[in-house]
Amino acid sequence: MIGRMASLPSVPMPAFPGEPECIAVTTAIPGPRSEELRVRHGKHQDARTVHVYQDAKKSLGNYLVDVDGNVMLDLYGHIACVPLGYNHPELLSAWRSGRFDWAAGYRPALGVAPPAEWVELVERALMRIAPHGLNHVMTVTSGAEAVENAIKAAFIRLAQRRRGAKPVSPDELAACMKNAQPDVEKFKVLSFEGGFHGRTLGALSLTRSKAIHKLDFPAFDWPTAPFPGNRFPLADHAEENARSEARSLEEVERVLRAHPDEVAAVIVEPIQGEGGDRHASSGFFRALRKLTKDHGAAFIADEVQTGGGVTGSWWAHESWDLDEPPDLVTFSKKLQLGGVYMREAFVPAEPYRLFSTFLGDPLRLAQLEVIVEVALRDRLLESTAITGAFLVRGLEELAARFPSVFSDARGRGTYAAIDVAQPAMLPRMLERFRAAGLEVGSSGTKSIRFRPALVFAPRHVAEALDLFAHVAESFA
Amino acid sequence: MIGRMASLPSVPMPAFPGEPECIAVTTAIPGPRSEELRVRHGKHQDARTVHVYQDAKKSLGNYLVDVDGNVMLDLYGHIACVPLGYNHPELLSAWRSGRFDWAAGYRPALGVAPPAEWVELVERALMRIAPHGLNHVMTVTSGAEAVENAIKAAFIRLAQRRRGAKPVSPDELAACMKNAQPDVEKFKVLSFEGGFHGRTLGALSLTRSKAIHKLDFPAFDWPTAPFPGNRFPLADHAEENARSEARSLEEVERVLRAHPDEVAAVIVEPIQGEGGDRHASSGFFRALRKLTKDHGAAFIADEVQTGGGVTGSWWAHESWDLDEPPDLVTFSKKLQLGGVYMREAFVPAEPYRLFSTFLGDPLRLAQLEVIVEVALRDRLLESTAITGAFLVRGLEELAARFPSVFSDARGRGTYAAIDVAQPAMLPRMLERFRAAGLEVGSSGTKSIRFRPALVFAPRHVAEALDLFAHVAESFA
Repeated sequence: MIGRMASLPSVPMPAFPGEPECIAVTTAIPGPRSEELRVRHGKHQDARTVHVYQDAKKSLGNYLVDVDGNVMLDLYGHIACVPLGYNHPELLSAWRSGRFDWAAGYRPALGVAPPAEWVELVERALMRIAPHGLNHVMTVTSGAEAVENAIKAAFIRLAQRRRGAKPVSPDELAACMKNAQPDVEKFKVLSFEGGFHGRTLGALSLTRSKAIHKLDFPAFDWPTAPFPGNRFPLADHAEENARSEARSLEEVERVLRAHPDEVAAVIVEPIQGEGGDRHASSGFFRALRKLTKDHGAAFIADEVQTGGGVTGSWWAHESWDLDEPPDLVTFSKKLQLGGVYMREAFVPAEPYRLFSTFLGDPLRLAQLEVIVEVALRDRLLESTAITGAFLVRGLEELAARFPSVFSDARGRGTYAAIDVAQPAMLPRMLERFRAAGLEVGSSGTKSIRFRPALVFAPRHVAEALDLFAHVAESFA
Repeated sequence: MIGRMASLPSVPMPAFPGEPECIAVTTAIPGPRSEELRVRHGKHQDARTVHVYQDAKKSLGNYLVDVDGNVMLDLYGHIACVPLGYNHPELLSAWRSGRFDWAAGYRPALGVAPPAEWVELVERALMRIAPHGLNHVMTVTSGAEAVENAIKAAFIRLAQRRRGAKPVSPDELAACMKNAQPDVEKFKVLSFEGGFHGRTLGALSLTRSKAIHKLDFPAFDWPTAPFPGNRFPLADHAEENARSEARSLEEVERVLRAHPDEVAAVIVEPIQGEGGDRHASSGFFRALRKLTKDHGAAFIADEVQTGGGVTGSWWAHESWDLDEPPDLVTFSKKLQLGGVYMREAFVPAEPYRLFSTFLGDPLRLAQLEVIVEVALRDRLLESTAITGAFLVRGLEELAARFPSVFSDARGRGTYAAIDVAQPAMLPRMLERFRAAGLEVGSSGTKSIRFRPALVFAPRHVAEALDLFAHVAESFA
């Protein structure tokens, strides 16, 4: 199945000292110890969503070891949050060597009295991997907070433009305290059908992936446009995909024209990561960038899931070849803390308008510095690009071999997915995969998503795809 | 000034090994090294809000040491986030002994595959200090997310009650994807004028403290009521305070009656911590609890700032002597991570309705376990109650001695405040305090707030109040 591998790359594939050689399953998954813990845990927290309870110390590299001793190959990576695999020696030795000790004695409010080390970490970790053209970064604690602050920056910018040279009026100040700013109530952010941007009520108003996220919660009346959701293989669907991209852009333009000076921002995931791993072409995103610029809306690339190297570059939007960078880029997950990169023009003129207590976590940023060092030293973005090509090729072959089971193999780097023929198959298949020792997750109603670590290598691809083929046979 | 101390307590006052004996200021504050760092920091983050850059390792106990070597007595505690002071020996030795090593190798998605240790930490840290009657806890990353999830739990509960035995209809599912649920658009949460509940757009719709938080951001059209904001000394203002509490309760009742089955929750801070350290009586809160119950609205105690022991108990609402506990209690800050305690009835029937990726941080919860152990072992809540009584007495004496400068001394535990006579005095006075080596913060337009650690002792009170008196002389 994976015989047609391209010529071997010049970049060394990541080696993870001591990593298990393969999956080893000895109980049902979840096993009896996981289920015992679920009962205890369920007394105080919602434990229904837990796949397995993890042995944090025994897990290594790409292999999640659960409390029953099962060794699972991890394709899901804690919803895309694990950059270097489990217990990478550099992360552990940095910890043990005392490198983080300065951060051990209290948790600061980083906007009030940050430690000196924080300034260095911002420079050495966040600015080292900053998207081109975005020199400012607001750190927060989660992806939802990143999105909330990105749109707040866009609202401030829009209000500033509408206000022009006029100062803020006493009426405006009084109105905002009553949640009744007549102009501002018209402000909108456009998001795409199928998009996921978080679950706080501002971010959730942008999220359009699943009803379970949104039912029974008040939401702002903001517009959407369809997302292209290109079909794969691209070569077989060129005309259809071009049509759906054109339709999406037309709708975006219609909304922007219908609400002049009211759409503060357009927010888009480079690949829709929760709503079905849906893709669009670089040309689509370039056109979207141009539309936002022409109509004075901020362009927000929500890279909470795509950021951090998994597409083969630090930021997925870097592959679009934009004339002008996004105005705002959100992150979290693999970066270990949330945040928003922004162009200087989006930094509010007054302090405290974008602010909160913690504004991130120095421990998590200190770990990110190590992650960035290792990724650069070991060329993990290049190896991820190669491993990803190998993975997508393998998924394409699976789809060709089992057309009644799989379709639409796709990916960028190891951020990959494949669809099952029927949504009803999906839960059963995930259960089979987990029982076989693959930690997997779904995306949308019919996609299986790959969100492995940056140390995912061709041998892990081969192991996963062999299991995919084995399970597919029983569904064919 | 502080001679009228009550008989000495039987609880030992906290001793912090190696803590500086007193403030030691050798440069302007902020000093030249802080200003150098501000320039570097300001290239990439908003550094205008920073008081000083901190020497994280040299800071000890109640004394913040800045990068210029100034030793400042910390009354502000990183906006109330520092429970044990800086670099408490138990926190450092837990760190060095390897107690947290299991959490060093990756950051998990705690709803997917939590480590076994997580279950124990929930039991030993969060449930050990859980408010009476609240056996369930959702962990998140910040106070804003705590509030967002508390009101989401209340919305789900209200929708469930309105729906009764009817299943969710396909129309409802379709409508929520369009941000257009006709019933749900009427859902409201009542908050109080002057309240602060966070800055994400849902939480921010509840926040009513300052225009700088709210200007130019869309907000939900939710109702408010005036907060009593009792005057001090209480004995001198009994009638006026009773009237303002009655007026507040009348307005709450009016709103609840005007919108039957639409007000999902009433949210209130036990002491308004950002909007001016405003207080109300236990009787007020008991009446509020009864009103919410009678009208089917959830009662949310927002203890993000008051929680964690600083009022002399883990939760400020415990002093109200309620017949029935709050339905939801939010926390963050001193607890090192965000979360919501909830009554079982508020746990959604379906999983994934209240969910996010990180759902907290195991490292921060592991530190909380140590914090709780130390607080219980060293009886820090009892000592805080005593130190607080000493502090408030001292503030009362200050107000009596300098009536043209100070008024309304008040507090519960060390969560205390004093007002200046004119709002214009406040920034100048804070500047004078900082120059003298006191790290302080304001609340509202005319209050100085005390948010010290649980290791704040009478000797620190004495040092602070001497400086207050000294500065007051120049303002009198």
